[in-house]
Amino acid sequence: MVTDRKGAAAGERLFNFSPGPAVLPLEVLEEIRRDMLCLPGVGSSVLEISHRSPAFDSILAETRQGLASLLGVPDTHEIIFLQGGANLQFSMIPMNLLRGQSLPADYVITGTWGAGAAKQAALEGDVAVSWDGKACNYGRLPTADEITASPKAAYVHLTSNETIQGVQWKQMPDTGDAPLVCDVSSDFLSRPIDVSKTGLLYACAQKNAGIAGVTVIVIRKDLLARSAASLPPMLSYKVHAEKDSRANTPPVFAIYVLGLVYRWIRDTFGDLDTLAAHNAAKAALLYDVLDASEGFYAGHAAAECRSDMNVTFRLPSESLEKAFVAEAAEQGLVDLKGHRSVGGIRASIYNAMPLAGVEKLRDFMTAFCQSHRSASGAADAAGGNS
Amino acid sequence: MVTDRKGAAAGERLFNFSPGPAVLPLEVLEEIRRDMLCLPGVGSSVLEISHRSPAFDSILAETRQGLASLLGVPDTHEIIFLQGGANLQFSMIPMNLLRGQSLPADYVITGTWGAGAAKQAALEGDVAVSWDGKACNYGRLPTADEITASPKAAYVHLTSNETIQGVQWKQMPDTGDAPLVCDVSSDFLSRPIDVSKTGLLYACAQKNAGIAGVTVIVIRKDLLARSAASLPPMLSYKVHAEKDSRANTPPVFAIYVLGLVYRWIRDTFGDLDTLAAHNAAKAALLYDVLDASEGFYAGHAAAECRSDMNVTFRLPSESLEKAFVAEAAEQGLVDLKGHRSVGGIRASIYNAMPLAGVEKLRDFMTAFCQSHRSASGAADAAGGNS
Repeated sequence: MVTDRKGAAAGERLFNFSPGPAVLPLEVLEEIRRDMLCLPGVGSSVLEISHRSPAFDSILAETRQGLASLLGVPDTHEIIFLQGGANLQFSMIPMNLLRGQSLPADYVITGTWGAGAAKQAALEGDVAVSWDGKACNYGRLPTADEITASPKAAYVHLTSNETIQGVQWKQMPDTGDAPLVCDVSSDFLSRPIDVSKTGLLYACAQKNAGIAGVTVIVIRKDLLARSAASLPPMLSYKVHAEKDSRANTPPVFAIYVLGLVYRWIRDTFGDLDTLAAHNAAKAALLYDVLDASEGFYAGHAAAECRSDMNVTFRLPSESLEKAFVAEAAEQGLVDLKGHRSVGGIRASIYNAMPLAGVEKLRDFMTAFCQSHRSASGAADAAGGNS
Repeated sequence: MVTDRKGAAAGERLFNFSPGPAVLPLEVLEEIRRDMLCLPGVGSSVLEISHRSPAFDSILAETRQGLASLLGVPDTHEIIFLQGGANLQFSMIPMNLLRGQSLPADYVITGTWGAGAAKQAALEGDVAVSWDGKACNYGRLPTADEITASPKAAYVHLTSNETIQGVQWKQMPDTGDAPLVCDVSSDFLSRPIDVSKTGLLYACAQKNAGIAGVTVIVIRKDLLARSAASLPPMLSYKVHAEKDSRANTPPVFAIYVLGLVYRWIRDTFGDLDTLAAHNAAKAALLYDVLDASEGFYAGHAAAECRSDMNVTFRLPSESLEKAFVAEAAEQGLVDLKGHRSVGGIRASIYNAMPLAGVEKLRDFMTAFCQSHRSASGAADAAGGNS
């Protein structure tokens, strides 16, 4: 939650560590601004064009093709753009893929969002929980042995990155013949993923890929046959696929921004391997501070599954956490407060968070640790040489 | 469909008669552009702020209060912002308001959108069609005697303005004790409406009120009790009302634009009576040309229900219609082609279409009629004085 931006001068941009909606590339914002009154040669703003106009035909096609090439989406899969956020997908997935199936859907729960997905799915059909990390406070992932998923499940659902806990799958588990359904909302486009091994990927755009208001679905085409004709048309993957994501008026502007972000990734990083390395290096800057802090910063997640997107940790006391957030804000580092359900600190460092922002946060963390650890501890209290 | 913008110079804005997404006030576009990189004093673009930030708290509250004051929404009613367009409402309305009710929902069908709403509702529960104007090609509205709605229906649904046919209710019919549920997508905020007499109003924003990606619901609070706990949470009016339209991440930017359009209406027209008079005067400029054209322009709708939003008419031949669209585009008047399902011409002249655009279209229509009526007719063929 932002409680700390009061000092921002009128036009001054801060380093925004919000978990989403989140920071966008400055180049993208500048292009949006440049063409806001008029898309070149179109005669209207992108906010004003028909979703059936040639101008939007191009935007839609280029965005889809761009994402497909970046992610390596094979011909067996289809990209759909929807509204309603990842949260609506928690219901749409079982409505489309579970109804009429003989076996339950398996849910591997590694954090708050996975738990929410399982809860909503249970309203629609039979759900089996294959593993739930609640007992270990969602601080680690299951081992392959711990997952009880059935190879014949309607599908296996998991969350690639849990934004609240900061826990990320580094490699997707093998789900056998059961289609892997994966919520990639918070690490979509931040790293490569083997789409050919997935049944359905879904991601809201407002973390790494754009703004709130559009959700990207990548679905294996054969699964479209599971969507029953009795479904509300706007909740049917089959209908949206058949209608080229224009069964009704799509969120034109949000798709346009998605296309701009895709182009920014292509032009800045080239491919997702390069971007993933860049993201991992950014995250390492902060995790190194945690590891060197002798417990002053206590990371939430086990080392092997710490998220490159959301760096979560606690300080020795809530009053120190409050001081951390306030002092960071004074230096232009904002939205560092952890989710209200877990407390602590969370630094969300998605694709568009510049290296300079992470470096500045690293330096702040190092200095904060030095001054507060020594101030509250015994060592150096008298300013001696140690 | 835009097939006619090729001539637009790089930054030249055309008069855009698109049925939606549609023209926005230039002042609104300029404000969006001005603050695109940074909302004043916030330190981030509106595209980047958390939906739980104080900055968005203000945007949401001011937009809701603004709409409430403009529409005169009484305390008995609540405003909710959703995603998915009016089309998703075609299903959400019966899911929320029809399930568990003892009597069917009545649908008064006055055009394509009403027919679509009834069709989707029938997937969810019992629907009774109270009147269907299909036999008269949706060219008129029913008389009070023709409507067979039950006073005890779960609700009575109608469409205040049919964009494809250009048919508009000038006064809502009395639905007795049955809640009136009205799709006001294409005349929302264009004229006053007595909200106290309605059960639920819904409107996508991309006609008169903003951009694609947000749908406004105005619901009588007692109807929220009809939303079953078994509904998918993202499809429950009750959940969204309880969560202040933030049950999940709302379309932040689309709500921001809605708030800017509200302020533009307030500052430009003061109230909806004044705006309605302005809109009626704009429409009259075009209908006067139709009436004076001696049948060259054949209006689709009966005079008493012609829409102030979408002026629909045919020309004597499809080739003349094609020439009309092409010649208009040469003069910077674009998107005048009628919906593909009905053909002909449609000029959508929502709130933000400037009077100058309508005057220019009127002059073009007058000149086109003069030149083509005489060219194709006998009179004046030899250039005589008449």
